[in-house]
Amino acid sequence: MPTIVTLTTDLGTQDAFVGAVKGVLLSQCPDAQIVDITHDIPPQAVRTGALRLASAAPYFPAGTVHLAVVDPGVGGERRPIAVEANAQHFVGPDNGVLSLAAPTMSAGWRAVELTNPAHRLSQLSNTFHGRDLFAPAAAHLACGGALEDLGDEVDAIIELALPRPRRDGDTLHGVVLDVDRFGNVITNVRAADLAGRSVAQVMVGDARIDGLSTAYDDSRRAVALIDSDDRLEVAVPGGSAAIAFGVGLDDPVEIRLRPLP
Amino acid sequence: MPTIVTLTTDLGTQDAFVGAVKGVLLSQCPDAQIVDITHDIPPQAVRTGALRLASAAPYFPAGTVHLAVVDPGVGGERRPIAVEANAQHFVGPDNGVLSLAAPTMSAGWRAVELTNPAHRLSQLSNTFHGRDLFAPAAAHLACGGALEDLGDEVDAIIELALPRPRRDGDTLHGVVLDVDRFGNVITNVRAADLAGRSVAQVMVGDARIDGLSTAYDDSRRAVALIDSDDRLEVAVPGGSAAIAFGVGLDDPVEIRLRPLP
Amino acid sequence: MPTIVTLTTDLGTQDAFVGAVKGVLLSQCPDAQIVDITHDIPPQAVRTGALRLASAAPYFPAGTVHLAVVDPGVGGERRPIAVEANAQHFVGPDNGVLSLAAPTMSAGWRAVELTNPAHRLSQLSNTFHGRDLFAPAAAHLACGGALEDLGDEVDAIIELALPRPRRDGDTLHGVVLDVDRFGNVITNVRAADLAGRSVAQVMVGDARIDGLSTAYDDSRRAVALIDSDDRLEVAVPGGSAAIAFGVGLDDPVEIRLRPLP
Repeated sequence: MPTIVTLTTDLGTQDAFVGAVKGVLLSQCPDAQIVDITHDIPPQAVRTGALRLASAAPYFPAGTVHLAVVDPGVGGERRPIAVEANAQHFVGPDNGVLSLAAPTMSAGWRAVELTNPAHRLSQLSNTFHGRDLFAPAAAHLACGGALEDLGDEVDAIIELALPRPRRDGDTLHGVVLDVDRFGNVITNVRAADLAGRSVAQVMVGDARIDGLSTAYDDSRRAVALIDSDDRLEVAVPGGSAAIAFGVGLDDPVEIRLRPLP
Repeated sequence: MPTIVTLTTDLGTQDAFVGAVKGVLLSQCPDAQIVDITHDIPPQAVRTGALRLASAAPYFPAGTVHLAVVDPGVGGERRPIAVEANAQHFVGPDNGVLSLAAPTMSAGWRAVELTNPAHRLSQLSNTFHGRDLFAPAAAHLACGGALEDLGDEVDAIIELALPRPRRDGDTLHGVVLDVDRFGNVITNVRAADLAGRSVAQVMVGDARIDGLSTAYDDSRRAVALIDSDDRLEVAVPGGSAAIAFGVGLDDPVEIRLRPLP
Repeated sequence: MPTIVTLTTDLGTQDAFVGAVKGVLLSQCPDAQIVDITHDIPPQAVRTGALRLASAAPYFPAGTVHLAVVDPGVGGERRPIAVEANAQHFVGPDNGVLSLAAPTMSAGWRAVELTNPAHRLSQLSNTFHGRDLFAPAAAHLACGGALEDLGDEVDAIIELALPRPRRDGDTLHGVVLDVDRFGNVITNVRAADLAGRSVAQVMVGDARIDGLSTAYDDSRRAVALIDSDDRLEVAVPGGSAAIAFGVGLDDPVEIRLRPLP
């Protein structure tokens, strides 16, 4: 059975970058089955790349190789790495982009720096490691090669610290972590953060929303709900909450809690 | 031979939604061959999704499974369904998005509601049935599972009614159904609607175009022709007819007919 | 092992065009492995399409079939062709789009015009040869069919002439060939054009950049470097050089050379 190699990049789809990465992957591991997660990470937005990969990776089977290329430090000091965690592999720069999907507390975590020159293109550019370094490493893993072949083991990788919500009496202070294609406003608050209390009101931008809904209830102008990634989200059914309420990344969110009824 | 699963969605390519759908598909049917038709259906534009799927589906082989996720009613009353028609399968919400590609008059038409809890993820969200419900159903069909395993048979699905052109003497009144990437203006008029008469003039927005061309004739500023989907289309060779003539979705089109020469 | 068929088109991803092309490919060669290079070539931008294909093709294995659809002359006089070169195949219109990846000086070059009616859809539209003519030809090659089955041999194809840099004393005059997703400004100057001299200054738009860097050095506002396609490029680390310096396609570039130190 072919091994899946997923791609999460900020390379966009207008240039030949992604094509070249896929060409290298298939030249070196013809049986790989390539799956695009997204190439539309905003340029060099490491946190957004990390969030996307962490959101999609758990739905892939064991053995999947995830290649992430959001790499503002290419050609500089940052290390190229490969990680094994949760029975999957992750390849990319050591800048945090892999760390939400494969944190060091994951089952079976181990990591290497990509120091072995045998697993890179003969011409290693300083500007496109996605093609020259990460794709060969991912191809090696996809075709059954061992992690330790790729280089020296490392004890730790750079872990991205997502902002955590802060509880202050009956108020939870969070931030906007993401705005999706539909304009839904996604916060850093998870169901567990509600701590057994119910939501009285959610405030973000111009929005004041009473209570939590269980779905995109189009009888209401706006809803707050726990979304399919287990995050508290504000949505305008049939519209864009981000536009309607003037909300963007990192804006503050305030949640008034009350005892469960 | 692997079974093809096509995807037609409004999920966009910036988020992790499509990646998660593909992860579920390949986890549950590793041999599926996934083909993107488009993920750029405008958010919740059911008619556009239905048109895209109907345009591409006939070019796929028998046995193909088409998964369509344009689902403004997710988590509400609309039924999730799977349809067999024209020796292909179609999976998605019962809101009309499948109905142009797989109308009830199709050869071998039958349909089920996706009521069987065995063919969905164990955690069924209220906001992302593409991942939790439709992908498992499509994977079941792609791996050779029977339609009736998925749930109870239904007699009818919601059929989308496209506006039909109206004949008034020597004038045909139509509407703009679509504007494509090139700015070509696509109408609801088909060759058969011309009823054995020829086209004297096509009027839409600011355009007044004499006669029908057979190709994008770049010696003319603008042309009307029967396009590759058998629809009357207005085009500006090398430019955008929609911009040049100020035309958008649902704008009226008037076609003056005359006897064949 | 399946044969790879790559796609480089201006068909965009919003319509059903690409889906229909893939449906035809897989109907006629079920074992083909389809890889998108890009569908976001600006409408009818033949030179950009040719550049993208030439950039990605060398990274694919021998036997790969590259299908390019940037076809402003569809339905007119331009010839549909297939080319064999560098142990790969190239299919598309004879308007130059194949000529940078498969120029006539390539190893093993030969070409045919797609004149054989057996290798096209039974209904050949005048507006969508990507689906009706090029996809069947590519499928034939991908499934091991012979080039000469597709039609009559031709001696020459239209070769795109990229502007060449002009040397004037210690100044090299070039042009902007491309602007990539990151706003990097890519010129028609290659390392070999520097003729054993070093770069004193690069001038393009409002940019005056001293010397060549070897990587995207973020301690500098802007850098000039030889990029991963062996072209002289101007970049703003973490930003867009095209926006920062007001640079667009075909703008002049001036490079002051000096003796190697």
